[in-house]
Amino acid sequence: MVQRLKDLGEFEFIRRIARTVSKREGTLLGIGDDAAVLRSSTKDDLLFTTDMLIEGVHFTRQMDPQDIGHKAIACSISDVAAMGGRPTFAVVSIGVSAKLNMQYVQRLYDGMNRIARRFRVGIVGGDTVRSSQIVINVALLGTVKRGQVIKRSGAKAGEHIFLTGAIGGSFQSGWHLTFTPRLKEAQYLVRKFHPTAMIDISDGLAADLGHILEQSHVGAVIDAKSIPRLPKVSLQAALDEGEDFELIFTLSPQSSKRLLSFRPSPYRFYKIGEITPSCEGFQLVDERGKKQRIEPQGYRHF
Amino acid sequence: MVQRLKDLGEFEFIRRIARTVSKREGTLLGIGDDAAVLRSSTKDDLLFTTDMLIEGVHFTRQMDPQDIGHKAIACSISDVAAMGGRPTFAVVSIGVSAKLNMQYVQRLYDGMNRIARRFRVGIVGGDTVRSSQIVINVALLGTVKRGQVIKRSGAKAGEHIFLTGAIGGSFQSGWHLTFTPRLKEAQYLVRKFHPTAMIDISDGLAADLGHILEQSHVGAVIDAKSIPRLPKVSLQAALDEGEDFELIFTLSPQSSKRLLSFRPSPYRFYKIGEITPSCEGFQLVDERGKKQRIEPQGYRHF
Repeated sequence: MVQRLKDLGEFEFIRRIARTVSKREGTLLGIGDDAAVLRSSTKDDLLFTTDMLIEGVHFTRQMDPQDIGHKAIACSISDVAAMGGRPTFAVVSIGVSAKLNMQYVQRLYDGMNRIARRFRVGIVGGDTVRSSQIVINVALLGTVKRGQVIKRSGAKAGEHIFLTGAIGGSFQSGWHLTFTPRLKEAQYLVRKFHPTAMIDISDGLAADLGHILEQSHVGAVIDAKSIPRLPKVSLQAALDEGEDFELIFTLSPQSSKRLLSFRPSPYRFYKIGEITPSCEGFQLVDERGKKQRIEPQGYRHF
Repeated sequence: MVQRLKDLGEFEFIRRIARTVSKREGTLLGIGDDAAVLRSSTKDDLLFTTDMLIEGVHFTRQMDPQDIGHKAIACSISDVAAMGGRPTFAVVSIGVSAKLNMQYVQRLYDGMNRIARRFRVGIVGGDTVRSSQIVINVALLGTVKRGQVIKRSGAKAGEHIFLTGAIGGSFQSGWHLTFTPRLKEAQYLVRKFHPTAMIDISDGLAADLGHILEQSHVGAVIDAKSIPRLPKVSLQAALDEGEDFELIFTLSPQSSKRLLSFRPSPYRFYKIGEITPSCEGFQLVDERGKKQRIEPQGYRHF
């Protein structure tokens, strides 16, 4: 029987690839988190992540190329932020048609350069190839102090679950193209409150919190009324749509209390629930106060 | 006037991008060589490179996916080798149709993993996206001892020009898919003979030696009779076709003499010419002993 990628699903596909992949010593964390963590022979570890954007899937020709360039870099910065690190250097591959005008490509790079400068990322190399669809791939390096990396796997029962901002409606509002990666917020949290797990929302709150639960071997209960949502966004949309690029993180009860009472706080954080033992699964207290099980759907790439 | 990429050409395009790109301290070498060189706070520097392969441009659905996977990783290893470094970690982005069967993708990864293991590269992350054309992007890290990096810009008049192997016919023979990156040869040269400049042949001998000449501000004269060619390959094809993935390197006359007389030598190297002052341009002594000027064409991506 021929198995198609669609039937397998993205996450099972990644699991299969991860099992058979070439390994090397010095890999502190390989496939399966927001970025790989690599030992470099210094007091910092290296972070390494990559994101690909494809015309017709992630963006259209009608969108402003400056926004597309912005997103290409911002996605990867968001990954590095979610590991508790800082971005450093990027290489950019771009596939474009020879008939494309230079102005379009220049605007694409303008968008990349603007956000790269804002977050002190150097664009140090790349590849330029011919392609009928526009394709952009960014690979980004970052650094994280040894021992300070925040994985998806560190959440423990009894801890509190937080968001860095309101979610939902990212596609309608254009936020999915123009978002600000939550690097400052992540660095603030790392310095003062020691998050135990962190992830950025690309696949959707339910799916991405689901990744933390799966990798931490825990359950969770989240409270619908406490999830900050953009106006006119349904609960279901907030849970499932994705590309919010806010961070989900977990804190010990003590750190949670400190975070919520810290004055003056430069950022707002939203407590949306608690981590539970694994056997309790992933539950939502809905707007009428009734508990229901969540089956993460999220964004399916296939 | 709208300027199209085709009219601008790949190299001018890259020059324009390189001028405006976001910079960061710690960049020892940015856009314009086989890989970027980055200061990491150890005794080694980091190398960082990326390569994108696109269905219909670099490969077709009829080719063995294992070979395509091989090539995707091998191109980047070749870049790291040409800088005098060793490859370490890779991240792989892949764009595929949901209708593609898993066996195809598994074979693609088999090809990547096999060569990655052979050259001790860990595949530590990636991105999986939907795409109608198959797209593969590899970003590769490497290390190079501080001060031992070999740039395109180091060749000096009076030095000798070498190749690591015979060239031409790469597309007909399938070598462009199944080639062995010349990492061992490069490491041997770095340890014993201190090449002053090095590049791998992707665009063609004329174009890639042209890159060395341009960046070193020198000229060259190469001897048609001394260029090792595969059987039935014309001189013009050997000069222009590309994707040979042999290394072009330059040595001082003393090192050149040592290399050519070194016994036993584990590898064969071919002296094909000499570096001249810039004013003499890029010349070829043809098979009848007549000097002619070379205008590098090479592979044009646009």
